[in-house]
Amino acid sequence: MRRGDGSVWGHLPELRTRGRRPAGASECAARLARVTSEVASAEASVPTRRTYSYLGPAGTFTEAALAQVPEARGHEWRSVRNVGEALADVVEGRSDAAMIAIENSVDGGVSTAQDALATVPGLRIVGEYLVPVEFVLVGRPGARLEDVSLIAAHPVAYAQCLQWLSGSLPAHAHVPAASNVASAMSLLDGSSDADAAIAPPGILEHHELELLASNIGDNPNAVTRFVLVSRTVVPPPPTGADKTSLIVELPDDHPGALLEMLEQFATRGINLSLLASRPIGDELGRYRFVVDADGHLEDERMADALLGLRRFSPRVTFLGSYPRADRAVVRYPERYADDVFVEARDWLRGLISGEPEVQE
Amino acid sequence: MRRGDGSVWGHLPELRTRGRRPAGASECAARLARVTSEVASAEASVPTRRTYSYLGPAGTFTEAALAQVPEARGHEWRSVRNVGEALADVVEGRSDAAMIAIENSVDGGVSTAQDALATVPGLRIVGEYLVPVEFVLVGRPGARLEDVSLIAAHPVAYAQCLQWLSGSLPAHAHVPAASNVASAMSLLDGSSDADAAIAPPGILEHHELELLASNIGDNPNAVTRFVLVSRTVVPPPPTGADKTSLIVELPDDHPGALLEMLEQFATRGINLSLLASRPIGDELGRYRFVVDADGHLEDERMADALLGLRRFSPRVTFLGSYPRADRAVVRYPERYADDVFVEARDWLRGLISGEPEVQE
Amino acid sequence: MRRGDGSVWGHLPELRTRGRRPAGASECAARLARVTSEVASAEASVPTRRTYSYLGPAGTFTEAALAQVPEARGHEWRSVRNVGEALADVVEGRSDAAMIAIENSVDGGVSTAQDALATVPGLRIVGEYLVPVEFVLVGRPGARLEDVSLIAAHPVAYAQCLQWLSGSLPAHAHVPAASNVASAMSLLDGSSDADAAIAPPGILEHHELELLASNIGDNPNAVTRFVLVSRTVVPPPPTGADKTSLIVELPDDHPGALLEMLEQFATRGINLSLLASRPIGDELGRYRFVVDADGHLEDERMADALLGLRRFSPRVTFLGSYPRADRAVVRYPERYADDVFVEARDWLRGLISGEPEVQE
Amino acid sequence: MRRGDGSVWGHLPELRTRGRRPAGASECAARLARVTSEVASAEASVPTRRTYSYLGPAGTFTEAALAQVPEARGHEWRSVRNVGEALADVVEGRSDAAMIAIENSVDGGVSTAQDALATVPGLRIVGEYLVPVEFVLVGRPGARLEDVSLIAAHPVAYAQCLQWLSGSLPAHAHVPAASNVASAMSLLDGSSDADAAIAPPGILEHHELELLASNIGDNPNAVTRFVLVSRTVVPPPPTGADKTSLIVELPDDHPGALLEMLEQFATRGINLSLLASRPIGDELGRYRFVVDADGHLEDERMADALLGLRRFSPRVTFLGSYPRADRAVVRYPERYADDVFVEARDWLRGLISGEPEVQE
Repeated sequence: MRRGDGSVWGHLPELRTRGRRPAGASECAARLARVTSEVASAEASVPTRRTYSYLGPAGTFTEAALAQVPEARGHEWRSVRNVGEALADVVEGRSDAAMIAIENSVDGGVSTAQDALATVPGLRIVGEYLVPVEFVLVGRPGARLEDVSLIAAHPVAYAQCLQWLSGSLPAHAHVPAASNVASAMSLLDGSSDADAAIAPPGILEHHELELLASNIGDNPNAVTRFVLVSRTVVPPPPTGADKTSLIVELPDDHPGALLEMLEQFATRGINLSLLASRPIGDELGRYRFVVDADGHLEDERMADALLGLRRFSPRVTFLGSYPRADRAVVRYPERYADDVFVEARDWLRGLISGEPEVQE
Repeated sequence: MRRGDGSVWGHLPELRTRGRRPAGASECAARLARVTSEVASAEASVPTRRTYSYLGPAGTFTEAALAQVPEARGHEWRSVRNVGEALADVVEGRSDAAMIAIENSVDGGVSTAQDALATVPGLRIVGEYLVPVEFVLVGRPGARLEDVSLIAAHPVAYAQCLQWLSGSLPAHAHVPAASNVASAMSLLDGSSDADAAIAPPGILEHHELELLASNIGDNPNAVTRFVLVSRTVVPPPPTGADKTSLIVELPDDHPGALLEMLEQFATRGINLSLLASRPIGDELGRYRFVVDADGHLEDERMADALLGLRRFSPRVTFLGSYPRADRAVVRYPERYADDVFVEARDWLRGLISGEPEVQE
Repeated sequence: MRRGDGSVWGHLPELRTRGRRPAGASECAARLARVTSEVASAEASVPTRRTYSYLGPAGTFTEAALAQVPEARGHEWRSVRNVGEALADVVEGRSDAAMIAIENSVDGGVSTAQDALATVPGLRIVGEYLVPVEFVLVGRPGARLEDVSLIAAHPVAYAQCLQWLSGSLPAHAHVPAASNVASAMSLLDGSSDADAAIAPPGILEHHELELLASNIGDNPNAVTRFVLVSRTVVPPPPTGADKTSLIVELPDDHPGALLEMLEQFATRGINLSLLASRPIGDELGRYRFVVDADGHLEDERMADALLGLRRFSPRVTFLGSYPRADRAVVRYPERYADDVFVEARDWLRGLISGEPEVQE
Repeated sequence: MRRGDGSVWGHLPELRTRGRRPAGASECAARLARVTSEVASAEASVPTRRTYSYLGPAGTFTEAALAQVPEARGHEWRSVRNVGEALADVVEGRSDAAMIAIENSVDGGVSTAQDALATVPGLRIVGEYLVPVEFVLVGRPGARLEDVSLIAAHPVAYAQCLQWLSGSLPAHAHVPAASNVASAMSLLDGSSDADAAIAPPGILEHHELELLASNIGDNPNAVTRFVLVSRTVVPPPPTGADKTSLIVELPDDHPGALLEMLEQFATRGINLSLLASRPIGDELGRYRFVVDADGHLEDERMADALLGLRRFSPRVTFLGSYPRADRAVVRYPERYADDVFVEARDWLRGLISGEPEVQE
């Protein structure tokens, strides 16, 4: 039985068609490639004005994340007050995409974001962005560090600068603010008696403030992870440095269920970079899992893992495959390479058709 | 070779000694029981004034959690501004215990709390408390709901009441506040033009405010989970409805490591109620895991799992075994009962000593 | 993207095509069905005389197994002296098929058979047959049980009748014979002084012997399992009560390799009915495994397991999928049904094409 | 809480006590050592004549295995006809030990041996012996190779020499014999017309035969594995190159049960050198497993695996821990060393007693 024969082809699965694609399938793939490139070019070149929602106001870490998106430049940025509002903008068509904090955020709301992605249908993550958690101390124009005694700051940001503050301004007092940006703005709008405020560096691009000190955060490595979320689209093509985000609901609550879920990844050589349980909330002891896995939906091993996951639990939500923010190439054992999957399918096809096995 | 012989006993002994305890070991257990009860009675009856740190000010959900601790009544409650401060109070001896939010907190800081427990040595969780996330709408004395147009609220709390607000006060506007309690206090101290504020119900016990509406949160099942943290102590005795909290660092980053860690629980019939990866922060791709497992350190299956875990990774931090807040009795397959562990040890002891096996 | 479109089909197609088969693939399947049925009808009806090798001489348990094969009736049966000879007959074209004992044989040679199947290429098991291990005591024509004192028997057969002999003929003596059949024939050809012999019941159809006692074996449930082996052919179609035989060489010798191999079956709900390690013989500590798994190559879960197995180890030998001798329908959890595999592929296809997920 | 305190000791398990043994336990261990050495010296030096059963007659491979046992020299060797008889001799006290073939035997009966060990209680394997499967061609005194045309041989032995025979004596004919030794003896006792016989080399020490050719077996690496079986005794002390033999009955028939059994070994870094399923025989689809695992009952990881196994299935039969025939030192990952187990117990003990953890 010849390979590449269209009718045989239909008989056995082939996930990806690059390289060794037979006639019939190649048309499909070509069409798919065309669609993908149209979507991409639509994003990049069409004159239509697009709208991006983000947790504002201007100057937040979320805005700094959005500033990393080349396609967003010159389009409308819509400041919203929370993650729910941002995602609702996308679902209801007010925005084309929303930037939301998904891990380690000082702006808060990470579990809210995870729960929202798990329950709001029709969303897809299309990009990941990292923003260093850096803080500056700012004052009114002309202010000097040695005159600072009362500091406005959001409590979480304040906690993250405590070490620097204790060293540099041991006699200071703290007045809590509603947000990182609000702490700075309160200096200018007269609503605060504070002498200085802790804020993200981005604030300096938006307001006339005096920079009193930079990098005052206690952890120089802290970063917040953001994702850009759109309505469901064809995933961007694999880059070799991709991430796949999923929400998986365990089928029932027994000790083995979680293990079985994770084995779907481990037995295909796939590393996870995020795993978190979230109570589903409908009854005690039921959990869903937020998962980030290394690789792309169109990698053979990831596609196979997704098939296994879907068979394991009908409640798997695919949130997207997209390039990693750090562009780190995904490493995996050679035995999970695409070729190995293709070779195994050829072998199985031979068995079914009764071809004599060639002993290598 | 007889069983129950003291010297043999030392050769292959027991974790727990209840029921079938030989002479020597029972003394130990009795002594241990005495110590435990002294600690407990110390907590309950000693006239010394104790101090409890919590995220304040008065009226927060954290204060509501602390109000659930009988031993804390009549002692000093110390209001602090963040989790780091609360735990530092305990470590440095300013407080006997600290109440901190560990899951689903609207007060923020959950990852901060998890990271702090992972890195600050000498701490132990001794109790768990659940506080329903309920919100009230309050105004100045004499205010009426129909007159409300500007509402002060922390952005996260605001998001969680959006559905109610859209229905009941569709024309309202929002002014962000620094904290749930601050939103209410701003009405009274003249620092806000708002007509009403969203706050936890506890605020009404501390301030003269008008209750305009109750239960305005959109999710009636939302709860925040808190833990009470002390310095390292003997764990409270098992109640049958216990939880064990751990921080586990994977020994190295390969797909199997996480599975192997979780197998330590699954192969002993232990369910997890919390699992979350946290980047360690020293280099890319290294994670620690925050784990809550059903059961108590003194349950045979849990002790055995801890042994396995420790052999698997030298970096396991035991945060404590303590009664679950919901008092739900832990269920597990009969094959993981204490008796089964004891029987297996008897059998192994017989093999080592060359006793003929009795075929049942 | 429409389903059932030929070109899309090639992009992520099916293993099996029954029921939901699109145009192109159905032709292939029809052709395949035609080929299969030709092979089958060739086996059954073509006037060509076929040859079957078996461990002889006439009267062995192996001959009794061959007598269970309807297609073998009226064709040539070729008696050989051992498994190696029987398989060589098939490989070298002297025979169309060979019947060999594969488990629990009193004729010996089971490990030899397993090793031969592992190393001789180009063979395929096409059927399984069970023969009860029954023994009769026979004598020369006219002999009587009460006169028996010296008994000829193969040592293994003798051991399996020892209980009956001790009870019924306590004073007997034993003279060992080369084979079960030889023990009986020695009575007739004058080469033995024995009064009686232990033999399979089949001996009575070939030789004029006196039946002195039946069912004298100590274990009434003992059966020997045989397989019919041909050159590589298209496997017989699935019956729902099938077995798949494999030889798997572990890729390297570490504790996890065996587990990983078995997980390929367990994670697809496939039970094993035979598992045996065999030293490969080239160097210390290297093993291959003889595996019988419940199900057929064309069952989705088995095909998926074979793919996983092949990716795991390049040295997997597929020995065949064939109806079980006991016709016991294979049971498996509903979550491993063919439909579940097909549904998961549809879902994955939707993800790749960017279709919005339908939340059920 | 001090370590090494006798009463505390009883509170937590310690399998082995070497090196870091507290007072009470050390007495026990000393006594145990004494007992063990008494047993050993009893074996070695006591003037009592001991009896060893083996599959005879003199000249078999089994006799060659027994010849490797130093303690058996000068004692009575009892030739029996099959494995069942040999084990019955031990159980009923007619023999002190029996040598039986357990793997790869040309004398047959390996599954019988495995089933017998699984069902006959009160037995223990105390040693392992390997005998190369070598064959010689022998004739009557004065015979010459070039005159040989008819060869007497057991069918299995004949098959294993077929390649040599085809090359060196292409025109020969075969007459089957009852056993390897019988084939040779038939030349001498006039019961055979054969010119030569295939036999084990040991035959030359017992009978006046002409050696016509040596090493005529086709596989120069073939070995048969034998075990020496006694009644239940204290296992011989660990040597670092040990093997542990077990029979494990799975608790019920589901895909995961076998995996769970094997995980008991894999999760403690223990390799298996033999794994074989055997139908239990009472009903369809129930299996027991014959397992050889690398290591000794007194190795911490093996003892822990046995505990896990026993909890998993109440039907585990420990057949013995004994030195490997090949004296190959067992290798295992450092993380499964005895020290790691001891350290983990110390750590657990500290947790229970409330000791502050020392962060290394």
